[in-house]
Amino acid sequence: MEKEATLLEDLLGLIKDKNEAALHDLIERLKTEDLVYAYNRFSKDDQASLINLLSPEDAATLLERIPQNQAVEAIENAEVETAASILNELYSDDQVDILAELDSTDAEAILDEMLPAEAENVRRLIQYDPESAGGLMVTEYLAFESDMTVGQTVKHLQEKAEEYEDYHVQYIYVTNNNRFAGVLQMRDLLLSRPNTKLSSIVIRNAFSMPPEASLEDLISFFDKYDFFGVPIVDGEDQLLGIVLRKDLREAESERSNLELLETQGIVGGEELRSMPVLLRSKRRLSWLSVNILLNIIAASVIAFYQDTLEEVIALAVFLPVISDMSGCSGNQAVAVSLRELSLGLVKPYELARVLWQEVKVGLINGTVLGILIGIAAYIYMGNAYLGLVVGGALAINTVVAVSIGGTIPLFLKKMNTDPALASGPILTTITDMLGFFLALTFAGAAMNYLV
Amino acid sequence: MEKEATLLEDLLGLIKDKNEAALHDLIERLKTEDLVYAYNRFSKDDQASLINLLSPEDAATLLERIPQNQAVEAIENAEVETAASILNELYSDDQVDILAELDSTDAEAILDEMLPAEAENVRRLIQYDPESAGGLMVTEYLAFESDMTVGQTVKHLQEKAEEYEDYHVQYIYVTNNNRFAGVLQMRDLLLSRPNTKLSSIVIRNAFSMPPEASLEDLISFFDKYDFFGVPIVDGEDQLLGIVLRKDLREAESERSNLELLETQGIVGGEELRSMPVLLRSKRRLSWLSVNILLNIIAASVIAFYQDTLEEVIALAVFLPVISDMSGCSGNQAVAVSLRELSLGLVKPYELARVLWQEVKVGLINGTVLGILIGIAAYIYMGNAYLGLVVGGALAINTVVAVSIGGTIPLFLKKMNTDPALASGPILTTITDMLGFFLALTFAGAAMNYLV
Repeated sequence: MEKEATLLEDLLGLIKDKNEAALHDLIERLKTEDLVYAYNRFSKDDQASLINLLSPEDAATLLERIPQNQAVEAIENAEVETAASILNELYSDDQVDILAELDSTDAEAILDEMLPAEAENVRRLIQYDPESAGGLMVTEYLAFESDMTVGQTVKHLQEKAEEYEDYHVQYIYVTNNNRFAGVLQMRDLLLSRPNTKLSSIVIRNAFSMPPEASLEDLISFFDKYDFFGVPIVDGEDQLLGIVLRKDLREAESERSNLELLETQGIVGGEELRSMPVLLRSKRRLSWLSVNILLNIIAASVIAFYQDTLEEVIALAVFLPVISDMSGCSGNQAVAVSLRELSLGLVKPYELARVLWQEVKVGLINGTVLGILIGIAAYIYMGNAYLGLVVGGALAINTVVAVSIGGTIPLFLKKMNTDPALASGPILTTITDMLGFFLALTFAGAAMNYLV
Repeated sequence: MEKEATLLEDLLGLIKDKNEAALHDLIERLKTEDLVYAYNRFSKDDQASLINLLSPEDAATLLERIPQNQAVEAIENAEVETAASILNELYSDDQVDILAELDSTDAEAILDEMLPAEAENVRRLIQYDPESAGGLMVTEYLAFESDMTVGQTVKHLQEKAEEYEDYHVQYIYVTNNNRFAGVLQMRDLLLSRPNTKLSSIVIRNAFSMPPEASLEDLISFFDKYDFFGVPIVDGEDQLLGIVLRKDLREAESERSNLELLETQGIVGGEELRSMPVLLRSKRRLSWLSVNILLNIIAASVIAFYQDTLEEVIALAVFLPVISDMSGCSGNQAVAVSLRELSLGLVKPYELARVLWQEVKVGLINGTVLGILIGIAAYIYMGNAYLGLVVGGALAINTVVAVSIGGTIPLFLKKMNTDPALASGPILTTITDMLGFFLALTFAGAAMNYLV
């Protein structure tokens, strides 16, 4: 507790004093998690002051480490010149991610101030879908023409050692009249004689991917092969960039985090408490207000059977239990399907197989839960028939809930709708309606034994 | 649809024909996702036959690509000799992950059949916590004594080129009388004269981590530094292994996936539909049966106010809506807190700050949802007071739900309990009880206007 409070104070003190040197030293030494935590706790003004005080290199390092929406906000709030000089220091994929989120006029103003080569690069990259190979690739890579010798290549690398220091790449790409020809590992250079031509040691049947390749394609590729990166090559064999394994893992991990938030009803999958209250409210409400409508529709089944309920008022205790437990059982099945979809273990059209696998679990769990609630109803109200009515309704409804829960994500995926966001509300609406209907019609049929 | 069906048929045909050569070719060519999908669809017998027919190298490649619990099952079902020869081919971290899941007698039998050096290595590694640096490290790395020259090192690398081919590592570690002395990049070798001693080019203040370092420590390290791996060194400066960035990302992504499943009530965070039905049922039921108890307790509030409900039976329609909507609002806040905890943006003791941030959202969303349900109740039942009762109860309950939802994960984390699994049930029990209580006491107070 004390550590974080002290850190916040130290940082704020240095910002107030405009002590650029000490800030540089402190930020170099901080662990990412502490820096991210501190930045997140600052007021908007302190965040802007910090960004202004840092050198473009340090500011770029900071932006690479905080969540992306905060990085976008920092660039939005900075002067155009400051923003441009920070962006010059970022890797091409981060440049694009940030600029793509800005208003197009803001983005244009910053691009005009950036180094012309960097700006041109961004303008080219920003056209790709951010979850495609084109959107994930970086353009910081090493490529040499195939008629160069090992000696020339090593000499070039030695001369430019400083410039290349930040490059992640462990491969050297070889081109032939600017067309992608293959790949070399650093150690291939090491183990060859200086006068060898690159063309004679290049691995020619190297893998490459088109810029349109999807996140799934890339995940599959890196699962299969132990490479650090894959070259992205267009239809005319031009080398466009490389996708690095590390960037891919980040994209993948980001996506499963967003899925977690979406399942719980955060539209867009992203909310940080540092966002404005109204924005947070709005995003949550957009899902809640659809949900309350569905809920009221579902509950109107109860109104329809109001006479039955009036005679067996004890049933009112168990209706919310049936609704909630069916939702829980169904959502377990939804979660398993989302996971299996993302692992590629199930295809969207395999509704029948998943249905059968869920029906089996539903029969067991429905029986157990039905007996539990039945006993509770019997003990509570002293009427075994009430136990049968409530238990029977929950048992049947559980089978239906897991069947729908297991299959609805597949169905939504097939319809190209987002299964994480929509599965829950659809599921609970159907199971609420059916649960209320079953309990109240069973009660109506058994009325003579209940009152 | 046809593609996968054909693939399954082809593979099964080759398995039945015991056509080892064709199987090898087909598996080499398959994308990971297709292979994983197909394996997952096989019967247990066909899975075992496939593992038996493959060469140890191919079987190892397959096991590295399927989910871990399936890999464990494959090894369990194989003959001891087959299992041992497959395990010999795996990376040390995968060897340990699989053997740690087996019965200790089964594991011992396999270890006795493995290559002695590999077995000894596993026995050492298996002692580490799987989510610590020791549990995540691999022991396939290159290390040379610091008094060797660049020329000697390159010669050694050339001679052993084939053996080292599979090594991920892009660094060379330097030891001094077996103590960790620093690190070299491949390109440092490339750019130095052959008679240079490693001691004169080694980067001495290289980062290292102890085997006890946690997953969080490692994530923070790799977020901060652009390295491919970090050496793991014990208190006596012995180099034990290296943790690779790629393995860390896999561990991290795995963890956020498990969190998604736990939030939805899959205890242990892992279920694949290829698991036995009874196991799947049991895991889901262990959470559901606690939940149904909590639900019945919460619903007993309704029984307590049965007289009120009998007089205003229309309220029975809205009780499940209040219960469900409060749960939804609260779970949104739970999801945001889980996300902020895992990003390190909030510390477990910051209950007050989170509470305040949620109360603000709760006031807005509670007002909106309260008005919506109030209008619905008014239109439906033609009684404005009923609208006030229902709307007021939901409005207040929403504020409480988001307050509890935002803070309960922090509280559970502070108590060292798993917030993903327990937050939901605790939340909904409290909000159900309060929601029913509010609606029914408000109704009791306004009874004269309601009937």
